[in-house]
Amino acid sequence: MAHISEEQIAQWDLIDPLAEKREAFTLPANTVYLDGNSLGAMPTAAALRGKQVLEHQWANDLITSWNTHSWIDLPATVGEKIAPLIGAAPEQVICCDSTSINLFKVLASAMTLQKNRSQVLSLAGNFPTDLYMVEGLTALLGESHCHLKTVDEDTLEEALTSEVAVLMLTQVDFRTGRLLDMQRVTHLAHKQGILVIWDLAHSAGALPIALDECDVDFAVGCGYKYFNGGPGAPAFVYVAKRLQAHVSQPLKGWMGHKQPFAFAQGYEQADNITQYLCGTPNVVSMSVLDAALEVFADVNMQQIREKSEALSELFIALVEAEVALSDLVLVSPRATKDRGSQLAFEHEHAHGICQALIELGVIADFRAPNILRFGFTPLYLRYQDILTSVQILTQVIQQKVYLQAQYNKQNKVT
Amino acid sequence: MAHISEEQIAQWDLIDPLAEKREAFTLPANTVYLDGNSLGAMPTAAALRGKQVLEHQWANDLITSWNTHSWIDLPATVGEKIAPLIGAAPEQVICCDSTSINLFKVLASAMTLQKNRSQVLSLAGNFPTDLYMVEGLTALLGESHCHLKTVDEDTLEEALTSEVAVLMLTQVDFRTGRLLDMQRVTHLAHKQGILVIWDLAHSAGALPIALDECDVDFAVGCGYKYFNGGPGAPAFVYVAKRLQAHVSQPLKGWMGHKQPFAFAQGYEQADNITQYLCGTPNVVSMSVLDAALEVFADVNMQQIREKSEALSELFIALVEAEVALSDLVLVSPRATKDRGSQLAFEHEHAHGICQALIELGVIADFRAPNILRFGFTPLYLRYQDILTSVQILTQVIQQKVYLQAQYNKQNKVT
Repeated sequence: MAHISEEQIAQWDLIDPLAEKREAFTLPANTVYLDGNSLGAMPTAAALRGKQVLEHQWANDLITSWNTHSWIDLPATVGEKIAPLIGAAPEQVICCDSTSINLFKVLASAMTLQKNRSQVLSLAGNFPTDLYMVEGLTALLGESHCHLKTVDEDTLEEALTSEVAVLMLTQVDFRTGRLLDMQRVTHLAHKQGILVIWDLAHSAGALPIALDECDVDFAVGCGYKYFNGGPGAPAFVYVAKRLQAHVSQPLKGWMGHKQPFAFAQGYEQADNITQYLCGTPNVVSMSVLDAALEVFADVNMQQIREKSEALSELFIALVEAEVALSDLVLVSPRATKDRGSQLAFEHEHAHGICQALIELGVIADFRAPNILRFGFTPLYLRYQDILTSVQILTQVIQQKVYLQAQYNKQNKVT
Repeated sequence: MAHISEEQIAQWDLIDPLAEKREAFTLPANTVYLDGNSLGAMPTAAALRGKQVLEHQWANDLITSWNTHSWIDLPATVGEKIAPLIGAAPEQVICCDSTSINLFKVLASAMTLQKNRSQVLSLAGNFPTDLYMVEGLTALLGESHCHLKTVDEDTLEEALTSEVAVLMLTQVDFRTGRLLDMQRVTHLAHKQGILVIWDLAHSAGALPIALDECDVDFAVGCGYKYFNGGPGAPAFVYVAKRLQAHVSQPLKGWMGHKQPFAFAQGYEQADNITQYLCGTPNVVSMSVLDAALEVFADVNMQQIREKSEALSELFIALVEAEVALSDLVLVSPRATKDRGSQLAFEHEHAHGICQALIELGVIADFRAPNILRFGFTPLYLRYQDILTSVQILTQVIQQKVYLQAQYNKQNKVT
């Protein structure tokens, strides 16, 4: 690690404009957490809110809290907090259900708009649940009305033909961190009359997103990764305002009704983003996410992006400077602009290395068969943490600590 | 209130075998809570668990908690706690999503099994979201493959013909508390080759249910009413073991995959109840529900039913004994065996009366246009509370307090 000194790294932390944001989080001692791309760390205010909702709102005010504590407004409240973070003007984002279920809603909406086309195009390397949800819709509509086609990244643009009904893409690849050009791809698709759905699971909260500016049709995303909303936090859905009067989603639960409390027998969908709600909102989890999003109130996504780039570039520089780490092969794009906020490396002992790192307090991530993932979350990581993690990584590989690692890591939620 | 003395009522509390269960709950002071049929009160252990999941599991153990704190098992763990409370042998119940979404899953599953029938039969008075979800499925499958027919209760049995694909009923009516005969109706439906879905929203946790014994095909239910799982708690779904190898549900999220962590491109559904999962489980809320269910560990549903009957019979007796309350018209079935754990009365000033009751510490419930609902939750209500509530109700009506009531109660989740 010759050409970047420890003093230099300490200096970067000193002048980091986001440095004090770390204090908003409760973090475990002696741990470098490089897995915020799977599960964000806990904003202290999120736990306080959870406690308040349980012990005060639920326990004392019971059913009256739907009004007195505005529980009924939570899906919209949280949606409007997320909106500016993903480049959406108001009244286009709402918080509800899971990413998978929201994907089903927008997939079905989009297919209904595209009456004479049946192909859903995606990338073969997309996060599996996204592809599975298309299969589910196919099972209902039939192959002739909905079928999935997957292509590799290098043939994506040529696959954008007038046969495609819907293009469904994840902006940042969950394995490699590859970042797609949302503006370009959306534009190319629209030229062919294709509707576009973006899954923001690995990008929302990590980098600036401009849904409105890119003229995106639909988007979904996750509350528990870079938004730090807690394990299994509710997800969100975006539908462009210009489409809202024309779409219809099939999970017609009472909360999407124009007047849910009229208890009318027939469904009349809300004529705005509210129609994307289904059942009763999950108040406890949604409140926790609501409080977690406050961390973003006084930062902008450009600041976050700049630090994210700097952290990951530092990680790469330190790895490249260390001879012992020469067997680590970067599988993320080398150009910063083409990546989200994570790095992936191949190594034949990736699984054991990941286990050893966790035992030594560096929480990284393994993806079968041989990939090590490191996620960089600018709100609570220091430059110093990057140095520490590469030092420990070096120790693990140099001393072959991975041969003894015992940590059992069978099931892990991305 | 002539023929039942206060001493008699106090005596009932003294000998009540469930009396000490009240201590497991955190309840507001000076309040009689008769709305546990909308949102159950808070078991103290539920809040403690919520706090622990936030401050300890999430904050300290972060992503590793999926294994170390068995987050990944929560849907099954909670499902297996609910199973015995609804008369289900193991491996048939799983906790996930909302009641509405689970209804969609089982509706679609059932319709797929019934290839040559297209009618979904329900009652006109069913909880609206149930009917809406059928409309949503119709929008996907087309009228010729799925259409809703609703009938009134008195013509239900004659409507059970070989044209019906699926009978979808809510066991206890959300307005009147009317309890259907699950065994009889399921049997009559099966004789016509009809598959049966029961919505247990207003019955699970309130009375003994015998899903297996009644040979029920599918059921869904709610975590936040009589199970006291917290506002918007996750719901549950039951699929009879004998059907599990034959069904397929269309919300094919990764958690329903046979091997979710293999990240395979194609969906291969789990061959058990796990296939009813979709996205990542909501850990915080599901943990709270998990802890809440511990209250049921050492009681049986028959005990709960007996006290529920006694509480509601006492309420009726006290109302009937009070001349000032003669304008309250019972719209629930008069026979105890035909009711769930709630009573509904019509009164022209129902809305104002409900507001006045809440202001005076009796939390009841209003349903448009003129219905007052009172729910009885044996785990935390005393016989004394019933006396108190009827005394305050008498005061409200006798002194026309409802004319001044200001409490604004626009939106309320049932």
